Amino acid sequence: MRIARYIPILEWGRHYTRGALGNDMMAAVIVTIMLIPQSLAYALLAGLPPEAGLYASIVPIMLYAVFGTSRALAVGPVAVVSLMTAAAVGQVAAQGTAGYAIAALTLAVMSGAMLLAMGLFRLGFLANFLSHPVIAGFITASGILIATSQISHILGISGGGHTLPEMLEGLVTHITQTNPITLALGAGATVFLFWVRKGLKPALRQFGVSPRTADIIQKAGPVAAVVVTTVLVWGFDLAGQGVAIVGAVPQSLPPLTMPDFSLDLLRALLLPAILISVIGFVESISVAQTLAAKKRQRIDPDQELIGLGFANIGAGFTGGYPVTGGFARSVVNFDAGAETPAAGAFTAVGLAIAALALTPLVFFLPKATLAATIIVAVLSLVDLSILRRTWAYSRTDFAAVAATIALTLGVGVEIGVTAGVILSIALHLYKTSRPHIAEVGLVPGTQHFRNIHRHAVETDPAILTIRIDESLYFANARFLEDHILNRVVQDCPIKHVILMCSAVNEIDMSALETLEALNERLRDMGITLHLSEVKGPVTDRLKRSHFLEQLTGQVFLAQYDAWRSLSAGKTMAAR
Amino acid sequence: MRIARYIPILEWGRHYTRGALGNDMMAAVIVTIMLIPQSLAYALLAGLPPEAGLYASIVPIMLYAVFGTSRALAVGPVAVVSLMTAAAVGQVAAQGTAGYAIAALTLAVMSGAMLLAMGLFRLGFLANFLSHPVIAGFITASGILIATSQISHILGISGGGHTLPEMLEGLVTHITQTNPITLALGAGATVFLFWVRKGLKPALRQFGVSPRTADIIQKAGPVAAVVVTTVLVWGFDLAGQGVAIVGAVPQSLPPLTMPDFSLDLLRALLLPAILISVIGFVESISVAQTLAAKKRQRIDPDQELIGLGFANIGAGFTGGYPVTGGFARSVVNFDAGAETPAAGAFTAVGLAIAALALTPLVFFLPKATLAATIIVAVLSLVDLSILRRTWAYSRTDFAAVAATIALTLGVGVEIGVTAGVILSIALHLYKTSRPHIAEVGLVPGTQHFRNIHRHAVETDPAILTIRIDESLYFANARFLEDHILNRVVQDCPIKHVILMCSAVNEIDMSALETLEALNERLRDMGITLHLSEVKGPVTDRLKRSHFLEQLTGQVFLAQYDAWRSLSAGKTMAAR
Repeated sequence: MRIARYIPILEWGRHYTRGALGNDMMAAVIVTIMLIPQSLAYALLAGLPPEAGLYASIVPIMLYAVFGTSRALAVGPVAVVSLMTAAAVGQVAAQGTAGYAIAALTLAVMSGAMLLAMGLFRLGFLANFLSHPVIAGFITASGILIATSQISHILGISGGGHTLPEMLEGLVTHITQTNPITLALGAGATVFLFWVRKGLKPALRQFGVSPRTADIIQKAGPVAAVVVTTVLVWGFDLAGQGVAIVGAVPQSLPPLTMPDFSLDLLRALLLPAILISVIGFVESISVAQTLAAKKRQRIDPDQELIGLGFANIGAGFTGGYPVTGGFARSVVNFDAGAETPAAGAFTAVGLAIAALALTPLVFFLPKATLAATIIVAVLSLVDLSILRRTWAYSRTDFAAVAATIALTLGVGVEIGVTAGVILSIALHLYKTSRPHIAEVGLVPGTQHFRNIHRHAVETDPAILTIRIDESLYFANARFLEDHILNRVVQDCPIKHVILMCSAVNEIDMSALETLEALNERLRDMGITLHLSEVKGPVTDRLKRSHFLEQLTGQVFLAQYDAWRSLSAGKTMAAR
Repeated sequence: MRIARYIPILEWGRHYTRGALGNDMMAAVIVTIMLIPQSLAYALLAGLPPEAGLYASIVPIMLYAVFGTSRALAVGPVAVVSLMTAAAVGQVAAQGTAGYAIAALTLAVMSGAMLLAMGLFRLGFLANFLSHPVIAGFITASGILIATSQISHILGISGGGHTLPEMLEGLVTHITQTNPITLALGAGATVFLFWVRKGLKPALRQFGVSPRTADIIQKAGPVAAVVVTTVLVWGFDLAGQGVAIVGAVPQSLPPLTMPDFSLDLLRALLLPAILISVIGFVESISVAQTLAAKKRQRIDPDQELIGLGFANIGAGFTGGYPVTGGFARSVVNFDAGAETPAAGAFTAVGLAIAALALTPLVFFLPKATLAATIIVAVLSLVDLSILRRTWAYSRTDFAAVAATIALTLGVGVEIGVTAGVILSIALHLYKTSRPHIAEVGLVPGTQHFRNIHRHAVETDPAILTIRIDESLYFANARFLEDHILNRVVQDCPIKHVILMCSAVNEIDMSALETLEALNERLRDMGITLHLSEVKGPVTDRLKRSHFLEQLTGQVFLAQYDAWRSLSAGKTMAAR
C-alpha cells in the first residue's frame, strides 16, 4: 500500500475499462501525428540530431504513464526547455559533436534526479518562488529568442548566438547569403501554418465540415506542410540547390545510452539542471492542474515531481534530452478524449513505430519547414501584455518581469530567470520591510478605529495608537521602532502608546527583542506601551518569553477596551 | 540649509556652552586613558602594528564628531571588526608585510565608501536583514574566536588560524613551547583584569570610596596592568628571557597613507567590506540608539551611515583600519558625562598626544598583557543563552542562530554571517509560503467567526469559509489554491467558497492570477467564490485588474454579511 502511493498506475490501472481504452487509443493517434514533426523540430532547436526528439518522446511518456498523476498530461520535448538545453550544453561542448549529445543526456538525468529528490523530500513548494510575472516574462522572452533563432533556417543562412543581440548580428552579417528557394519554402510553410491555425477551421466550417472533423484536420496541418515541402524538395531535387534537409535519420527504437557523470561536467551543468527542473515542473504542473480542474480531478504536485523525474531519467538513458509536460500537446490529448495516462503509453507506441519505420520518409524534409513549425508554435507563447498588466497592477511585479525579459533577451536564459527570481524575492522583502503603518482614532459613535488621515475620528493627545499592517519580523522590526520613537519625540503630551496588532500574524525573535527595547526606551521617556487585538497564536508565543511580564502597559483584547480604559474621557476632534 | 542637514556639527556646534565643554573634556580624559591600551590590543588582534590602533582612533573620531548624530558614540577599532579585518586581509597578504597594512587601509576606505553610499542613497534599511539572533550568534562566536586566538599570546607560543579547529590545533601543537614567564605575566594580568571588572568596585566601596571615584579607578584598571607588567619586563629584563614585547612604536601623528585601489584587491575585499560595513553599522547604531533613548534624543540612521563612512575613509588615509562605534567605550563616554560629539574630538586630541609622546613608554609592554585585555573585554560579548532563548521562542530563529555560530566557529566569520543571513531570509520565506489557513464558522449568538477545529461554531455544508492568516504573494498563492481545491474535491455539497481576507495585507500579481485561476476552476465545478473583509488598499489594487468583474461571487464587507446572504438558514452544529 505504501509503495502503491508512489505508483498511481496501480490505482487507475485496476479500474481500466474498454470504453477508456477506445478513447485513449483515439487520442493517441491524434497526438502521435502531431508529435512527429514537433519532436524533430524541437530536437533541432536543442542543437541535437532530429531522432533525439523522437527518442525523448517514447520512454519518458511511458514512465510518466506509470508514475504521473495527470490523466491528460503529454510529456516530451518542449520549446522552452529545448532552448535552455541548447544554452546549457552549448557552454560545455560544440554542436554536432558526440560530447554535445552526451552532455544533453547527462543534463536530462541530473534534472530527473533533482525532480525525483524534490518529489521524495516534498520540496515541490520551491517552485512557488518563481513568481507568475517572472515565469510569464521568461516564457515570452524565450519565445522571442526561439523564433529569432529559427529565422536563419527560413533564410537558409548560418545563424547561432544565445542572446537576441548575438542572433540579430548573425542574421545581419549573413543575410546576403540568403537561399531564395529555402526562403520560399520556409516563408510559404510559415504563412500556411499561421493560416491553418487561424483561418482553416472557419473555412472548413463554411464548407459544412463538422467541428470535430475540422479540429482533426487542423491538427494535421503541420503534417501537411511536412509532406508537401518534402515532396517538393524530393521532386525538384532542391537539396542540390542548397536547401538544407534533415537527411539520414537512423531507423531504430530508442537506443540504450550512457550519460557522462564526470565531476567537471556535473558541476558545469548544475545550475542549468536546477533551472530546467524548476521551470519544466512549473510549466508542467500548471498545464496538469488546468486540465484536471476541468474534470474536478486533483493533481498531487509531489507525485508529479516523481513522474517527471523518472521521465527525465528515462530520457537520459535512451538517447533523449530534458523533457516536461507540454501545453499544446496536453491540450490536444485532453480535447481528443484521453481518459487515462494509458493514452500517453499508446502515443509512445505510435512514436516508436514512427522511429522504426517512418524515418526514411523525412530524409528530404527541409529544415526550413521545421523552423516554420517552431516559429508558429512559439509565437503563441509571446505575450508582452504581461508588461502592461503588471504596470497597471503593481510596480514591483512590473520591475521583476521587465528585468526578466530584458536579461533573458540580452544576456541569456539562465541569468534572466535567476535574476527574475532573486529580484522578485528581494522586492517582496523590501515591501514587507517598510509595511503600512497607520495612526488610528475612534470613529464617533462606533467601536471601530480608523486611520486618522483618512477618516474623521476622535483622538486623545495623551494616546498614540499605531496599527501595523504586516507581520513583525527582522526586516521590519526596526522600521516600526524608528517610526514610533520619531513620532513620540516630536509630540510631548503622549503618555500611552498602543500597538494595534490585528494584522500581525507573527512576531519573530528579532521583532520580540525590538518590542522589548521599545518598551524600555518608552519607559525611559515615561510612556507606557500597550498592545491590543493580538491574535491567539501570537499571544501563545509571546507567553514563552518574558515580554508580557516586562511590558509597562497592558494587553487588551479589543482596541476599544484599550481606548475606554486609557482615554481621559476628554476627546478632541480629528485633525 | 540642505548641506547643513548632512553636517550635524553645524547644528549642535552653534549652541555649544561652557558647561558642555567642561563635561566633554572630563569624559574625554577618562575615555583616552581607557582607549590607549585597547587601541594597541585591537591592532594586534587585526594583525597590524600597534600604532595602527592609535591612528584608527584619531582622525575617525574627529570626522565622526563632524558628521555623526549620536552625542555619546565613541568610534574606533572594535574587537569583532578587528577579527573580521584579520580574516579578510589574511586572505590577500601575509601578516607583517607592507601589503597587509595597505590592504587594511583599502578595506577601511572600501567599507567607508559603502557606508557613505548607503547613507546618501538611504539604504540603511539593508542592515535590517541581519536578524537579531544572527547578530547575537555571530558576536558570540566572534568573541569565542577572539578569546581563543589570544591564548597563544598568553602562553608565549606561536598561534594562528582563522577557525576554532585551526586555532585549537595550533595551540595543541605548540603547547610544549610555553614560556613560563610569559604565562605568569599573561595569566596574572587576566586574573587581575577579571577581578577589576567584578570585584574591585565592591571592595573600594567597602573602604568608603565614593561610587564615582570607584568607577574611575575601575576604568584605570587596564592601565595599571599595562604599567605593572611593563615595569616588570623592563626591571627584570624579561624580554631577554623570551617574553614577547610590543617593541618600538613610532612617535608620530597619524601619517598620510595611500590605499591600493588595484582591481584585483578591490574584488578580493568586496564581500568582506560589505560584511564589515553592515555589521559595523548594526553594532554602532544599536549602541547609539540605546544611549540616545536614555536622553529622549533621536539618531538618524542614514546620517549615522554618513558619519561612519567618513570615519572609515579617514581611517584608510591615516594609517588605520576599519572602525565603528564601540559598545564599551561609548558607554564609558556616556557615563562620564559626554554631552556632545566634541567629547570625541577631545579624545582624539588626547590620543594624538599619546601617539606623539607616550609611545616609547610601551616599548617593554608584554603582548601577553594586551592579550589579557582583549580576552577580558571580549568574554563579555559571549552569550550562549541566545541558543536557549531562541529554542524556547522559535525553532526557525534557533536554526538561524545555531547555523551562524557553528559556521562562524568552524568555517570562518564571513561564511558564518553570510549563511546566517541567507538562512534567516530563507526560513522567513518558507514560513510565509505555508501560512496558517483556518476553516471558520459562526460563533452562535455573535457575529464572530472562529476556527471550526478550536471552537463550537455553526457551519453550513454548502459553504466553505477559509481565513488565510498571511498576505498573498507568489510563494504562498499556490499553497492556498491547493488547499482549497483539495478541500472542495473531497466534499461534494459545497456550493460557495468564501475567502476571508482580514489578515491579508497585500495581494501581488501572482496571487491575483492564482485567485483568477481558482475562480475559474471553482466555476468549472459549479462553485462560486466570494471574498469578505478585504482591506481598503487591497480592494483599491484589485480594482485595477479585471478580477472583481470576473469573480463568480461577491465581495462582502463583513464575513457576517456573507454568511447571512449565502446560508440557507438551516445551520448545523460544529463537528
